[in-house]
Formats: sequence, C-alpha cells, structure tokens
Amino acid sequence: MTTIKEELKQLIDHKTKPLGSLGMLEELAQQIGEMLGSTSPQLTLPHLVVFAGDHGIALEGVSAYPQEVTYQMVLNFLQGGAAINVFCRQHDIQLQIIDAGVNADFEAGLSLGKAKIAKGTASFLNGPAMTEEQADLCLVKGAEVVAAIADQGCNVIGFGEMGIGNTSSAAVLMSLICQIPLSECIGRGTGLNDIQLVKKQEILEKAIANYAGPLDVHTLMRHFGGFELLQIAGAMLTAVKRKMLVLVDGFIATVAYLCALQLDPSIAKHAIFCHQSDEKGHKGLLNYLDAKPVLQLGLRLGEGTGCALAFPLLQSAVLFLNEMASFESASVSNKA
Amino acid sequence: MTTIKEELKQLIDHKTKPLGSLGMLEELAQQIGEMLGSTSPQLTLPHLVVFAGDHGIALEGVSAYPQEVTYQMVLNFLQGGAAINVFCRQHDIQLQIIDAGVNADFEAGLSLGKAKIAKGTASFLNGPAMTEEQADLCLVKGAEVVAAIADQGCNVIGFGEMGIGNTSSAAVLMSLICQIPLSECIGRGTGLNDIQLVKKQEILEKAIANYAGPLDVHTLMRHFGGFELLQIAGAMLTAVKRKMLVLVDGFIATVAYLCALQLDPSIAKHAIFCHQSDEKGHKGLLNYLDAKPVLQLGLRLGEGTGCALAFPLLQSAVLFLNEMASFESASVSNKA
Repeated sequence: MTTIKEELKQLIDHKTKPLGSLGMLEELAQQIGEMLGSTSPQLTLPHLVVFAGDHGIALEGVSAYPQEVTYQMVLNFLQGGAAINVFCRQHDIQLQIIDAGVNADFEAGLSLGKAKIAKGTASFLNGPAMTEEQADLCLVKGAEVVAAIADQGCNVIGFGEMGIGNTSSAAVLMSLICQIPLSECIGRGTGLNDIQLVKKQEILEKAIANYAGPLDVHTLMRHFGGFELLQIAGAMLTAVKRKMLVLVDGFIATVAYLCALQLDPSIAKHAIFCHQSDEKGHKGLLNYLDAKPVLQLGLRLGEGTGCALAFPLLQSAVLFLNEMASFESASVSNKA
Repeated sequence: MTTIKEELKQLIDHKTKPLGSLGMLEELAQQIGEMLGSTSPQLTLPHLVVFAGDHGIALEGVSAYPQEVTYQMVLNFLQGGAAINVFCRQHDIQLQIIDAGVNADFEAGLSLGKAKIAKGTASFLNGPAMTEEQADLCLVKGAEVVAAIADQGCNVIGFGEMGIGNTSSAAVLMSLICQIPLSECIGRGTGLNDIQLVKKQEILEKAIANYAGPLDVHTLMRHFGGFELLQIAGAMLTAVKRKMLVLVDGFIATVAYLCALQLDPSIAKHAIFCHQSDEKGHKGLLNYLDAKPVLQLGLRLGEGTGCALAFPLLQSAVLFLNEMASFESASVSNKA
C-alpha cells in the first residue's frame, strides 16, 4: 500500500515540469499535503493572530522606541493602518489582535481579543519577568485563542507580535536555550544605534549574570519571557494538536517556536518558516533549527508580516499540486 | 522643490514601522513609484508573455528532453495545465503564449500569438543560428507584442520562455558577453546527469571555438541566440520605451535582459529581478548585473514562473505605500 507521502511525491514528480524544478514549492506541497493528510490539500480560512504585550526590560533602555508605542500600534492595528493589516487584506487572511499584556487600558468596544495577564511584565534585570501562575495562564490563553479559530475550520495559522523590548527577551531566551553566545543573539531591534546596541548587550549580560535558576525551558520562559511570546508558544502548541499548519514569522516568533519545540517536538512537522529576518539573531536561530526560510527580504518588522507575505507562495504550492497537468494527462514526453 | 524620488522616500520613512524594516519591499516601492512617476502608483493589467521557440543545437544532444517537448508544452500552456497557467490564474495576470519559432505546425484557431520566424533555429555548432533578417525580425515581433499590450493600459509585464535547448544558447551568450568562462555559465538545464553535462560543455566549447566573428552583441545574438530569446529582448526594449515595469525571470530571460541592456542601458531602472534560479549560471549572471533577486526558491522551470510568483510581493510594495498609516496620521510616537 502506498502512503500519502509516496502518493504526493508521485504526483509532484509527474507534473509537467522537469523533476524538482519548482524547488521549495515542491517541498512545501509535500509538507502541506502530508500535514493535512491529503493529496489535494486546501488551505482553509487562513488566520493571523498578533499578540501584543509590554516588557519591564524596556524601561531599562533597550529599545529605540518608547514603551507607549506598543499601545499606539495596537490602536493602529485596530484601525487597519499597520503593515500587517495591509498584507492580510491583500491575501484575504483573517487578522486578530490580542492584548496579551499591554501597559495601558483599552476603551470598551474595540475589536481586541482580551487575554491581558498584567500591564506588562516585570523587568528581568534583577528578577523574574512573571510569576509561575502568569506563565501558565499565558499558555492557556494562547491555546484558547487558537482553539476558537480551529473550531471555525481554519487549518493554517500564523502568529505575529508587538511589544517594545521583546527582541531583548527573545535574545536572552535564544542564548540560554540554544547555548549560543548572547552577542550572536542580540540585534538592533527597532533600530538601535551602535552606542545603544552596546548598552542593550550590557544590560542583558547583567540580567543573565544575575540569574541563578535552573535552565529548563519552563523556568527560562517565566524568568525572561514576555506575555505575548508565551501566548504565541501556547497558541502554536494548540495549533499542532488541532493539526494546523503553523506559520512562523521573524525573530521573536521563532524564539516562541523554539520554546514550543522544547515542550512538543512534533511541532517541527507543522512549521513553515516564512522568512529570514534582518534582526541579527534570526539567521543563527534558523540555522540552529535547520530551518529553511521561504522568503529572504531583509524584513525586521514583526507583526507576522513575514507570514502574510509568504502566504501566496504556500497557496502556489497547493495550487500547482491540485491544478497542474501531468506528463500523461497533457501528452508531454517525459525525460529522454 | 522636492522630486518624486524624495517624496517617495519621505512617505516610506514615515509609515508606522521602524526605518527600513520592510527591507526589499521598501526598495521596490521606491523603484516602482519612481518608474511609474507617482507617489501612489498602481500596477495595472499585469501581463506575462511566454515566447516559445526551438533550437537547432538541441539536436546535438544538449538537453535531457526531446525537442518535441517545446511543441507539447505550448499545447499544455494553451490548455491551462502548466505551472505558469496556475500561477497567472492565482494572481490575475493576463497570460499570452507566442510562437516565436516552434518546430511544428499548430492547428488554426488556437489562442496563440503568431510570431514564428522559422521552425527552429539552425544549430550554432558550425554556423549562425539565424540570418540577420531573422534576428531583426525577432526584435520587431517582440516589440509588436508588447506595444499591443501597452496600448491596453498594462504597466507591468513579465517574460517567460519555452524552448528545449535554450540554456545552451543562453550559456554561450552569457560567457561571450560577460567574458565569464563557459564552465561557470553551463548548468543542468531541464536535468542533465553528470555525463550529459560534460557532453553539453564539450559541444558548446566546440561551437565557441568554431566561431571567428565579431563580439558585438548584435552579431552574437544572431549567431548563438534563439528566436524566443531575441523576441524577449525586443519585447523588453519596447516595454522600456512604453515606461513599463519589466519583470525578469530566470536564466534565459536574464540573458535576454543582458542583450537588451547592451542595446539600451536605461532598461536597468525598469527591471525587477524576480528570482534567483537554481540553473548554475544564473547566480553569477545576477552578480555580474549587480541585481538583487526578490525570491530565492530554487526554481529552474522558466516559463516566467518566477515573475508570476514574485508578483504579489510587488503588489505588497505598492499596497503598503498606498495604504499604511504614517506616524502622524496614526498618532504613533516616532523614534525616541
């Protein structure tokens, strides 16, 4: 009996094109077909969820932008004016914005998912960013968001984030989980200059030096994580349980994936790495994960923009699988 | 007075995102705006034209597929079953197929552009692929196709090709025009094995050794070119005159661009290099041209597939420029 895996390979190889000539699209078609358990897969009701949260570490001076930008950008998302709004509209992707822990009160009546853990994390310079209860609650809240979306019939979901200071959180988690020197994990974030970058590195080195706890992923996530980062990890874990394709965005989302991977290695088969960010640590992290990004556009915006921009290529993979003629059906001579 | 160039830069830099964080999309938005002469450009009536032609050199044994595949694939295009059909349908790109010189008679009534120069070129192993009249006619025919499309209001056009043997033609042209060793210009085409690849190299080296003519681009195109390759060059030159954006596909289309560039250097500002092909010579050719490809998906199919797949990213560039809020309009704090 042939398996779906073999059937997909047969189908792809008999399309009217030289063997392998659609490159990465062929790998995507194979992965998507296997994951959705079909030789004629369909991407249904694509969603993108942006989790927003604030970071105590931002107040130590690790970002080029003031903390209130997290709040302001959430309002911008809700008004449809951010990059992720534009790209989701372009590709008919449903966009949800979740308040995972923004340091502000939102007025009632906004179309904003309510998953606020607190008004920002504590600074992890001298202590944990959050309590154990808060960390657990993040995973639960992220899971709930995805479960509701899966119930509607969505099988492909991407995750974005907004949170001034969150490249700091992500850099420390990457360094400690992957055992990669911090200097290779730290980048300019929203645009630090050279002096600010040195300061960011000093602060984060101090934070690591001040930490004497265990190195298991749960404790590290709680100590150095952000509410949005942990909610994304929880969301990804549920997407796996619900047999969805998981679109991984840039640096912070990939660190969330790294955390989720420690908790459930089966996520690897579901994940599509949508792009390689220009944020310094991302290339190294993708290498560590042996992940091949779909796009390399020098993006470093977050918000899930890489997922939205890569989405039409996933559609192309599915469409060539479903719609292209075979050598046999089109009466085209195969290789001599 | 500010120029369009400066206005575009201002607009892009004030969008609600860190400076430069949309990477290559920002460069594309700038280029497209400058080229279309607008700070709110629109891509209108996108077209993709596939020129098909046969090559005498194919009969010397330089391809993994028999020559009749050119004809069969043209029928496949007309029936909608090829990869380029799928991707053009996906992105609402008008697709035209042109018979530039296929070695077959097509039945009447097909929706096929008629620009046949002859039933394939002569082999360039011992003499010119075509006459001077044929070469001139290629440029004229390519120009006519684009002029008719421009008249309809199209401002963005991509070019694809189909022609068994045409990587051989392209490799020799690249080597002689760029003065790059032939071995760096030769690849596996539709899928040669190691032995066949050595044979391809030997044949093409012999063809170059047999050539004693001048090295100007006109003579080289006539001696080593293909009907589809020259028609693409003519088409590109007219697209420039009509102020269109020119989408450059893979190896053969980029060699056509290289030829057109020698004839009119102003094409450079119009060109968008849609992808880096897996065909060996393409990376070196893009380097030679100092061209940055939009996609790197390991494609090596031709047909203009890279243009069609990159198109939604050009749309994204235009859309973020037109639709994203500015820091001012969204009341988001700019950099501290």
